[in-house]
Amino acid sequence: MSKVVDFYFDFSSPYGYFAATRVDAVCAAHGATVNWHPFLLGAVFKLTNAAPLTTYAIKGDYARHDWARLARRHQVPFEMPAHFPFGAVSASRAFYHVRQRDPAEAVRLAKALFRAAFVEQRDIAQVEGVAHVAKAAGFDAEDILAGIRDPAAKDQLKREVEAAIARGVFGSPFFIVEGEGFWGNDRLEEAAAWLDSGGW
Amino acid sequence: MSKVVDFYFDFSSPYGYFAATRVDAVCAAHGATVNWHPFLLGAVFKLTNAAPLTTYAIKGDYARHDWARLARRHQVPFEMPAHFPFGAVSASRAFYHVRQRDPAEAVRLAKALFRAAFVEQRDIAQVEGVAHVAKAAGFDAEDILAGIRDPAAKDQLKREVEAAIARGVFGSPFFIVEGEGFWGNDRLEEAAAWLDSGGW
Repeated sequence: MSKVVDFYFDFSSPYGYFAATRVDAVCAAHGATVNWHPFLLGAVFKLTNAAPLTTYAIKGDYARHDWARLARRHQVPFEMPAHFPFGAVSASRAFYHVRQRDPAEAVRLAKALFRAAFVEQRDIAQVEGVAHVAKAAGFDAEDILAGIRDPAAKDQLKREVEAAIARGVFGSPFFIVEGEGFWGNDRLEEAAAWLDSGGW
Repeated sequence: MSKVVDFYFDFSSPYGYFAATRVDAVCAAHGATVNWHPFLLGAVFKLTNAAPLTTYAIKGDYARHDWARLARRHQVPFEMPAHFPFGAVSASRAFYHVRQRDPAEAVRLAKALFRAAFVEQRDIAQVEGVAHVAKAAGFDAEDILAGIRDPAAKDQLKREVEAAIARGVFGSPFFIVEGEGFWGNDRLEEAAAWLDSGGW
């Protein structure tokens, strides 16, 4: 399994959540592993003059409808967070704090955080909320709290955001396969197919 | 064939062009006919605070790359127009002028116009360019010129743009199937699948 798909997402992105529920399985079916990269859409939006989907006229209503419909189609639980959009800084730092020791555990934490936000109506915008979700998933809450405040995790997140922008990432989810970028949950299968086909 | 897919597009939209090359075949495979509806993205962009894709930082570069890649994947000819974006008013009016007499002929004209713009590097922004492409496709150039200037075609286009907005259309291409909207060339298969499945 030497093939790798880079999976960029923002923890507050509903389309990112949907992708997170299936990215590992879809890529594994094509013999690839996935590198998870939480980043901050807000930083990118400043460059692209964009804003959270729900703030747009017409398009925002479409997105809400589409999310509920996607949940039904993929048969995954989904409930729109009461507070949206929300900040993903704490969740992202916690991820990178865990990743430096164990990437697989960081992915497990990411899935728990996504589920907390988009299924369980839990607040993951605040440090305490992230620690609470982590603890429920079997992580050491004190370690997570310390990690979120650790300058190392802060620096790592900053570097990841800069790297994402440098690689052309401008939305969530975004997949990079052999240097090719694919934007959007609905391009996941295409990104994975690129691996098998050798591209087109 | 009582099932119908409403296909909304702007003649200056590359993703609209790609959808136009396959929408009839994809929908026919699901037992549906397609109603083609050119509209004007500019009118919608005023409401959604959006702009042509190529004007955005990062996202614009992605779009150009993605269009060339899509052309290779679907094996359809594509060359980025030298002047982009371009106005689609004349092309759209010509379409509705022809459609009032013969919808199938209007679709044939639409395909010729898309091909002229995105394959043959022809200017379809101006009235004369549209008439020239129409003539090469076997239409009566004088009739097309008169039609573009006819208040009836102008009014029909205005009504179509208003109807598109009222139905939640905010991008190109956009498909509406049994009241369900699907945005984007990469959602065409999903929109068509909705017809067979009875929805989800």
